[in-house]
Order: sequence, then structure tokens, then C-alpha cells
Amino acid sequence: MAPRIAFEDFVAGQVETYGAYPVTRQEVIDYASEFDPQPFHLDDEAGRASLLGGLAASGWHSCAILMRLNCDHFITDSTSMGGPGIDEMKWLKPVFPGDILSVRREILDARPSASKPDRGIVRFRFELINQTGEVVLVQINPILFGRRAAGATQGAAHV
Amino acid sequence: MAPRIAFEDFVAGQVETYGAYPVTRQEVIDYASEFDPQPFHLDDEAGRASLLGGLAASGWHSCAILMRLNCDHFITDSTSMGGPGIDEMKWLKPVFPGDILSVRREILDARPSASKPDRGIVRFRFELINQTGEVVLVQINPILFGRRAAGATQGAAHV
Repeated sequence: MAPRIAFEDFVAGQVETYGAYPVTRQEVIDYASEFDPQPFHLDDEAGRASLLGGLAASGWHSCAILMRLNCDHFITDSTSMGGPGIDEMKWLKPVFPGDILSVRREILDARPSASKPDRGIVRFRFELINQTGEVVLVQINPILFGRRAAGATQGAAHV
Repeated sequence: MAPRIAFEDFVAGQVETYGAYPVTRQEVIDYASEFDPQPFHLDDEAGRASLLGGLAASGWHSCAILMRLNCDHFITDSTSMGGPGIDEMKWLKPVFPGDILSVRREILDARPSASKPDRGIVRFRFELINQTGEVVLVQINPILFGRRAAGATQGAAHV
């Protein structure tokens, strides 16, 4: 099945909000055990003694959750060719077990590739937001998308 | 047991290389299934048809692997208080199953906090490197560390 969303569908200034990702205690500990085994991501006591104020998710786990929410909302049904990197990322607040996370997506700009006519570059500003409305993470990054007319190939922008 | 490595141990200009993380096919698929289910991270055929040239790891998975290598080499045995964000990150090459990843760490600068005497800020440039010497990811980011003399508290820099 051909992807539904292509470069042409992204318009500068568009804002959308979506998602409701429940963060579980087990998931926080499992992720940290595998990738970021600092005490405040693994243990209640160490979390309380830290500046986080309690056992909290790895910042990389928060990024992964944002990616999953983006995939579910639009990326896996799009002509995404991947992204070359991250322009800016800030972890603003801790993410705790029990939090429910959603996304605010703003399109900063969208321009056709100067060198490759089959694709365009969309630059997003994503906020990951908890159930009390606090922005826990902000991320600005470009993603390449195939253009509808060009019948672009899917694939990440590593080359 | 008190952490061994503190702010005072990081000196601008220091370069270290470390780690040997074998990337398995199952891990690539498991991570992507949970957090980044784009076809080229899940399926050989879709990977080959993409710009990646084959089934390849999510870029967020690469970041997580870098974090794990950093934890094992120095962070979990340090006075790390976490990091406020990422200044720059580029995914330069795909990461494939079978790759063995290592890290080159350069210390860009290290300065005591102007406002909080118990901590300092170290800015790193990390390269994640595959077994053929290709840099697959580069990341520049600050991490806060407690100062030895001050007997700093562990915890992330969210406040």
C-alpha cells in the first residue's frame, strides 16, 4: 500500500497535537537497564535523592517515545526517507512513571531539495508534553519526504 | 560506594576511545518495533529498497547504544547529574546488524557552574564508529558533573 502522506502535505505554520502514551514504571526501568543504567533511572531511593526528585525516565527513552508517537501519527504512513540529524534538543522536565505523554508538532518550514527533485526537507519543532501540560522535551529536526509527483523511494537520508 | 570520576577529572582537549558493542539483527528489529517502526528498520526487502541499502538500526537506537557505551566507560562511575540537552547530532551512516560500535570521546571544554558551586559543565564531542572506521554518528552535548570538593548530589539537570 502506497504511503498516504507526502512532502506536499506539510505546510509551514501548521500545528497539530496528538498522542497519549502512558509511561509505565517497568518500561522506564527496562529501558534504563539496557541503555542508560544511571541510579536515578533505576531506583526510587536514588531518584528521590537526585535533582529529578524521583525515579525518572532516561532522556533517550523520552526521545524514543516521541519517535513512536510521531510514527503512529504520521511517519509510518508517509514517504519518510529518514532524517540527517537533530538541530536542537532540550530535556526540560523529568518524565515519571504514570505520566501520559502527547505531542505538539509545528512545521517550521518545508522546501524542495535543491539537488534531488524527488524529495523535500521538512523542519519540525516537536514538544513532548505531560498530562499536566508541562513541556518535558523540545526538539527541532529536519526529515526528508518523498514528493508525490516524483514517486520517491523510501529510505533514510544517510547518503 | 562513592563515584570515582568527578568534574575535576575532565580536561579540555582529552581524547579517549573505548567500547565494542556488537549490534544484533534481533536487537535492531526489537528496538524499531517498539519505538521506530519504519519499514527500513524492520524488513530486509524494505531496507534494500531504501537509501540505507539494507535493514538498518533506528537512529535513536544508535543514540541509545552510544549512551550505553558512555555509561559503561565512565558515566555510571561518575558524579553525573545528567544533561540538559543536545547541541548537535548528525546521523552520518547507517548502522547494520553485525556492526561492532566503539566511541571516540573528545572533551571540548569544562567549566565550573557560575551559579552553583557544587557542579561543573563538561561539553563533549562523541563519535560512534563502526568496525571499518566509519563515523556513523556525531553528537555534541553538555553533561553536568558534581565537583569532588563540594560533595555534590547525583541527579539530572532538569532544575
